[in-house]
Amino acid sequence: MSRWEPDARGRLERAALELYLERGFERTSVAEIAERAGLTERTFFRHYTDKREVLFAGSSALQELLVDTVARAPGPATPMEAVAAALQAAAAVLQERREHARRRHAVITANAELQERELIKLAALAAGLADALRQRGVDDASASLAAEAGIAVFKVAFRRWTEQAGEKDLSEFIGESFAGLKAVTAGT
Amino acid sequence: MSRWEPDARGRLERAALELYLERGFERTSVAEIAERAGLTERTFFRHYTDKREVLFAGSSALQELLVDTVARAPGPATPMEAVAAALQAAAAVLQERREHARRRHAVITANAELQERELIKLAALAAGLADALRQRGVDDASASLAAEAGIAVFKVAFRRWTEQAGEKDLSEFIGESFAGLKAVTAGT
Repeated sequence: MSRWEPDARGRLERAALELYLERGFERTSVAEIAERAGLTERTFFRHYTDKREVLFAGSSALQELLVDTVARAPGPATPMEAVAAALQAAAAVLQERREHARRRHAVITANAELQERELIKLAALAAGLADALRQRGVDDASASLAAEAGIAVFKVAFRRWTEQAGEKDLSEFIGESFAGLKAVTAGT
Repeated sequence: MSRWEPDARGRLERAALELYLERGFERTSVAEIAERAGLTERTFFRHYTDKREVLFAGSSALQELLVDTVARAPGPATPMEAVAAALQAAAAVLQERREHARRRHAVITANAELQERELIKLAALAAGLADALRQRGVDDASASLAAEAGIAVFKVAFRRWTEQAGEKDLSEFIGESFAGLKAVTAGT
């Protein structure tokens, strides 16, 4: 990052989200994002490949956090306890950026292509969690089931968190969704 | 369908899968599929929009079957029982077309774009199941959780079924995966 452009990445991200919400993702150009941020297009492309990447650049850090938390879970933790710890670690990060997360969610919900990209990202998170569980010695099927169920819990909790009128933490919604999953799963 | 082209759709489908497995999805053209099936390109386009649709044309029938089965589940059935009944109904159909299902799975696994399309299809199935549960009066969060968890069970069961060396039915794998989900979910 150049010393003449402090927080260029953050400024570009905020400008992009503002514009995506104001006029829609499709109708926003990189030139407009750069202009709103008071930067050049050249600077934009030093930080992001394209305007979609502004929305998904955080995914690999999130994946790393989930995988590391599963790996570092105490030995006796069950697969689902390890997954829950990982999701709570992610929740803490997202809670800090609540306004950003909500805006991003609104932009993605309004665009079919972005929704698809988000699904693919969530599938990659599930695959990463499952791999991390296998590395802990969890059998193949249980690892996949715990990971996929964990991502299902996360999706439901995240949606409720972004849509709520109140101030409840994502962490609480995750806890509620785990309890909800346990309740529906017991009913078979 | 023209009376001069008996089972054109089935012939095109079989020809397409053969070619996708022999030379890869990307390297197969519609002209080659039509030729292998002994039909014209014009006939191909009467049945399918493009070569990808050959692999995904069955999705809407599957979605309908899932949704109908949830709707027709006995009144006292729990959300998860209704989802399990739907998945077992789908399993019966897929079991009948086992060879086709396995070939299709091999083609999709070999191609990133097709894998993404399959994820999107599965997400649509989960959304359809959740809606059908809500129509039964299940609360919003439980409906989403049961539907997403059901699709997770299905994914794991389906993968194990296509990869197995033996002759076990998809239905059995689904039963095992439900038991597996219950076991991992209880461990929280």
